Formats: sequence, C-alpha cells, structure tokens
Amino acid sequence: MTEMLVLTEPDLRRIVRLDASAVTCVEDAFAALATKPVVMPPILRLDIVENRGEVDVKTAYVPGLDGFAIKVSPGFFDNPKLGLPSLNGLMILFSTKTGLVEALLLDNGYLTDVRTAAAGAVAAKHLSRPDSQVAAIFGAGIQARLQLEALTLVRPIKQARIWARDLAKAEAAAQDLSTSLGIAVEAERHPEAACDGANIIVTTTPAEQPILKAAWLQPGQHVTAMGSDSEHKNEIDPAILTRASYIADSVAQTRRLGELHHAIKAGLIKPDRAFPSLGQVIAKQAPGRDGPNAVTLCDLTGTGVQDTAIATLAHARARDAGAGRSINTKEATGGLS
Amino acid sequence: MTEMLVLTEPDLRRIVRLDASAVTCVEDAFAALATKPVVMPPILRLDIVENRGEVDVKTAYVPGLDGFAIKVSPGFFDNPKLGLPSLNGLMILFSTKTGLVEALLLDNGYLTDVRTAAAGAVAAKHLSRPDSQVAAIFGAGIQARLQLEALTLVRPIKQARIWARDLAKAEAAAQDLSTSLGIAVEAERHPEAACDGANIIVTTTPAEQPILKAAWLQPGQHVTAMGSDSEHKNEIDPAILTRASYIADSVAQTRRLGELHHAIKAGLIKPDRAFPSLGQVIAKQAPGRDGPNAVTLCDLTGTGVQDTAIATLAHARARDAGAGRSINTKEATGGLS
Repeated sequence: MTEMLVLTEPDLRRIVRLDASAVTCVEDAFAALATKPVVMPPILRLDIVENRGEVDVKTAYVPGLDGFAIKVSPGFFDNPKLGLPSLNGLMILFSTKTGLVEALLLDNGYLTDVRTAAAGAVAAKHLSRPDSQVAAIFGAGIQARLQLEALTLVRPIKQARIWARDLAKAEAAAQDLSTSLGIAVEAERHPEAACDGANIIVTTTPAEQPILKAAWLQPGQHVTAMGSDSEHKNEIDPAILTRASYIADSVAQTRRLGELHHAIKAGLIKPDRAFPSLGQVIAKQAPGRDGPNAVTLCDLTGTGVQDTAIATLAHARARDAGAGRSINTKEATGGLS
Repeated sequence: MTEMLVLTEPDLRRIVRLDASAVTCVEDAFAALATKPVVMPPILRLDIVENRGEVDVKTAYVPGLDGFAIKVSPGFFDNPKLGLPSLNGLMILFSTKTGLVEALLLDNGYLTDVRTAAAGAVAAKHLSRPDSQVAAIFGAGIQARLQLEALTLVRPIKQARIWARDLAKAEAAAQDLSTSLGIAVEAERHPEAACDGANIIVTTTPAEQPILKAAWLQPGQHVTAMGSDSEHKNEIDPAILTRASYIADSVAQTRRLGELHHAIKAGLIKPDRAFPSLGQVIAKQAPGRDGPNAVTLCDLTGTGVQDTAIATLAHARARDAGAGRSINTKEATGGLS
C-alpha cells in the first residue's frame, strides 16, 4: 500500500520507445478526450523570471485507465550556460481508485519527448495525405528529430528537409537522421524551399514570430505546429488559420497558448469560434482532411491526457519487465546509499 | 546534476517535527508572501468524482529560498473502507536556479500536517491574547491534536476542551493529549460549552455547515478556522466575519475556498472588500489584535509558500543529518530491489 515503483531515465528508455504502441496509446488518449468524461484541469504554471525558469504541471483523469499522471516539467533556459539541459521533469502515476502513488517516473523529460512526438504521428495519420512521401521539419532539436521519426511510423516518408535558423545544426540533424532512419534527409537553407513540394510540414521551434508564411503553402499539405506551448510563442502566420482546416489537440488550450491564440489576437478569428479537436477527428465525430488538395493545420500544445497515457504504458511495461526499484515510503531509507 | 535525494516518511519524521523551528519557518513564509515578490499560482485541482477523490497541487516560489516545492495532495474519501488513509501525497523540491529536482519527499502527507499545524501556531502567536490559557478544539483528528500541540508552543495553554461530533473520538483525543502535552484536556459534549471561557478556538473539521455560532463568541477570543480548503466546506457562521477582525493566510484563496467565500455568498461581505493577510500582520503592515477584548478570526486554507518553506527546512535538515538516499536518474535501477 505504501510501495511505489521508481523508474529512472535509462529504465524508461529501455521499456518505452517511440513506436507503434506509443502512437496508439496517444491516439487512444486523444479519442478519450473527445468521447469520455475526461477531467483535464488547466495547466498550473509557475514562472521564475529572474532565472528564466518556468514550470508546467499537467494532469488528466481518463475514465477506464487505472492510473492518472501528474507531470512536472521545468524549463530553465539559462541552464545550457551551466552545462545543464533546459528541460527536465518527472511524472508521478497515481491510482485512480485510491490516489496512492503507484510509480515515480524519473524520466528527465524523456516520456514527454515520446508522447509529444507520438502526437505528431497521430496528427499526420489522421490529417495528412496517406501518400505523403516528403516531409519538411522546422527546427533541429530533439523534437525535430523525433517528429520526423514519428512521421515514418505512419506515412511512407522517403525524403525530408530540415530547416533551422542555425544551418550547421540543421546539417547535423539531417546527417544523423539520414543514417538512423535510412531515408534521404537534407538541410535546407531557405524555409520556403523546405516547404516547396513537402506533403507534411512540422514546426518544432520556440519561435516568437511566425516562421511559416501563408504564401508558401501548397494544396494538399498538412502542417503540424508543435512548438507553441505558451502565450508568447508563435510559429505559424495567423493568416494560415483562415485558409487551412484547423484542428487542435485541445481547443481550450490552443485558444490560450497555441497558434489559435495569435490568430484571435490578430483579429483574424473570432474568439469563440468552434474548431474540431484531434480526438474528434480520430473518433470520426468531426471531419479531418477534405480531399487530397485540402490544407490542414494541427496545433499541438501538449495535453495531460498524453501524459497519463504514456505513464500508464510505462508502468504496465515496467511491471511486465520487472523493471525499476520498489520503495516503501513507510520504511526509513537508512542513510545515504 | 541528475542526483536527487529521496526521503521517506520515517526519514522525515525523524528530522522534521512540530517545534519552534517549524513555526518560525512557516512564519517567515507568510511574511515573505506579504513582503516579497512571491509567485504563488492558483491551486491545480483534479476531481475524480466516481471514487470520491480529489487532488490538489500547490506550489510557490519564494525569492531568497534556494528551492521551491511542488506538492501533490490526493484525498480519496472512500479509502478508509479499504483500510487505507484518505490523505496522502508527496512533495518535490526543485532548485530555483536550475529547475532540477533536489529532493523527493515521500512523506504521505506528514509535512503537510506539520506545516498546517505550524500555521495555527503562527496565527495564535500574532492574533490571540498573549495570556491565553484555555483552548477549545473542534474536531478529534490528526489536525485537532496537532493544532493543540501547536498552541502550546506559542501560548501558556493550561487547559483544553475537545468537541467532536463523535464524543468517543473526542474522549480518546482528550486522553491522549492530556498525557502527551501534560495539560488538562477534556472532551466536551456541547460545542457552545467548549467555547465558553476559551481564549483560543481552533476548528479543524470538514464541516459543510457552520459548527461555530456567532452568538457563542466572547470578547477577547481568537478563532483559527483551518478545516475549509474547498468551496463546499464551511465551519464558521458567516455572521462572525461581520463582527470579528478577519485575517486570512491568502485572501485570494479564502475568497474562493475559505470561510470568506461563504460570508460573501451569504451577502454579508462585499466580494471585493479588502482584508489583511497573516503575513501582513507578521510584517506589521496591518494591525492584528486591537486590544484584549477584540475578537479575531484567522481563516487558513493552506498555501504553497508553507509547502516550499517546510520542504526547504526538511532538505536542509536531511543534508545536515546525512538522511535519505540518493538516486541518480541517469542510471538504471537494476531491477526490483
């Protein structure tokens, strides 16, 4: 009753990967958000301005799952100067029946990386053309890499272009991805050229000014914008929202934190206009792509249901594999190990 | 850099107690809330109605402290039927500089008990008559016991009465407290009689209808109401708020969750009326008790600054004592222990 399973980042990397199971798990979570009485409170946010730090706490209760996760994600953007990563965090998995802690997932943000990339796969699976072969990725960080990998899980991607403000980073990412994914990946100097002829465009940057212009979009393209997760971030030209079919992971959230927020602020979209959610598209309660020439835009801000879903998957895998270490909170730890 | 200290409940019980240090630590936290640019976001709340479960997440950044805590407190009120405690939880202490986890405090709610009782001591220290000798406690649970103990830390308490809906529980608490505190403690069958002649009255119940009537109050009394921490809880006759000097741990919170909320709902207090906070009284920015015959009411709903303060104290004590066990989140745990 007071035992909890502790899993570290290597434990979790061993048992949870960006694969078809992770994609299905996140897909089911989005569907639940649209079809079940999910409880997903607004994100708790703490800002520590003097250290360029921010902390998000996300959670969601999904009826039918045994557990719910509470995820704490700190982002401290001066950390690289100290030789530390900006992003960190952990998840705590609780029993939905008793509220007792079942597992501490000390993942340093790894599970967030996986569930975020999996959401990109889900968006592409339900919104991009099924014959999509060419991808353009904006950004060259961890999510840029994972988002391309995620696309290859759901679409017959043969070629990809990476654009980033720092060309050298784009080149390094392109080289790594060519090798790891076994497809042609090249760095592209101009963002417009990266988009030209791409079937899927994924933006993964912390941009505060739009980096994807409306004029660049071509019929049939699908865009997933996953960089914006707070008020000041903005990757997408707001005019795109007036032309593309817009779908959000959580419309309540994107209205406040996502690309939708900027289109409303620009006066291009009415604040109360209804939009379908990705879960509604998955559950066939809302249309997704309207033919091969439609342009679709999926706005991902990250949701607590994804965290609950991936944490539940991790816990089940850990039990099956006998991974992790059990701690009894009613017993003394017996001093430093 | 990826090391965190893990402390279990027995570790924490050994190094943190309800004592003068705990009271000072919470007192300083309240003062900081009034005098420093503390960041304390609204509580994140998740309800799992079908299991009578609720989860609160609290946090606060206090400038000057090295760490900030995020506390997760589940309350699942059918747990006793399963032989489990209703309340649980843990705290996570993060570095304010890097956002990295410094310590996992697996306290099962123990530190919350201590910091909540310490707040009662702080309220009595700043608002009750210095010569207070007689206390009345409403409720017979853990907080009832700890609140009386807390009063003895700051006032020359010689006698106490315990009133609870279940007389047998009141009698058991009275007997235990007589022994542990070495003062005269008796169970009282009638709440009005418990208040008669008491200098300090502390209400610690989950009542949803007022249990302390305005007509019972006598000149010079101080009331601390600490049971209400959500919209539907209400221990204090709203009329008391029109007669007593009202002070809150956080007026923003008590306006939504505390006794103030009910007085506003009853139309007795204007929604935007200003009230002093306990921190302002401590910092001498607001008056507290106006003479020996004043009646004072302190409304405590529990704040993130208390959690950050007690977690910081626990971490410092653990380092000094070499308590706890270190986990490296970048190393595999090596299977079940």
